[in-house]
Amino acid sequence: MTIKEFQQLISQKYEKRDRQRGTPATFLWFIEEIGELATALARDDQNNKIEEFGDVFAWLCTLANINDVDLEQAVQKYHGPNHLGYK
Amino acid sequence: MTIKEFQQLISQKYEKRDRQRGTPATFLWFIEEIGELATALARDDQNNKIEEFGDVFAWLCTLANINDVDLEQAVQKYHGPNHLGYK
Repeated sequence: MTIKEFQQLISQKYEKRDRQRGTPATFLWFIEEIGELATALARDDQNNKIEEFGDVFAWLCTLANINDVDLEQAVQKYHGPNHLGYK
Repeated sequence: MTIKEFQQLISQKYEKRDRQRGTPATFLWFIEEIGELATALARDDQNNKIEEFGDVFAWLCTLANINDVDLEQAVQKYHGPNHLGYK
């Protein structure tokens, strides 16, 4: 599955509702998922990690959708040999 | 580009170093990028949003890599009609 296809899947399911909610309130939900990921990492629970990594990625996609950001385009810079700003 | 291909690209570039750093310290860098995304969203700066969404996605991939999580597999559940736990 391409990054674009997954972002479109999330758009079809959730974008209308998330646009109505708006970015600040959607960001709160996103951060709640980040917290759940932190819990899974701290407990080193592999099944829970898979669950929470998936949820964080989905919420990142919906936040990107309502901000008109194409994630696949946004990561093109990582194809270069020396992407600055990453560590 | 598939989700798996991007995760592999990030693995080739960063996984060795990030495994040495470990999950807790890598999570700190991830959260720093989340903060930068929040700044871009609050300022409603489109170019900066693209930059920061890309960086958060890349850091999510490297965290997943060092925790042996396949993001493409982790989001399979979103193909179902009623994924529970998402809102």
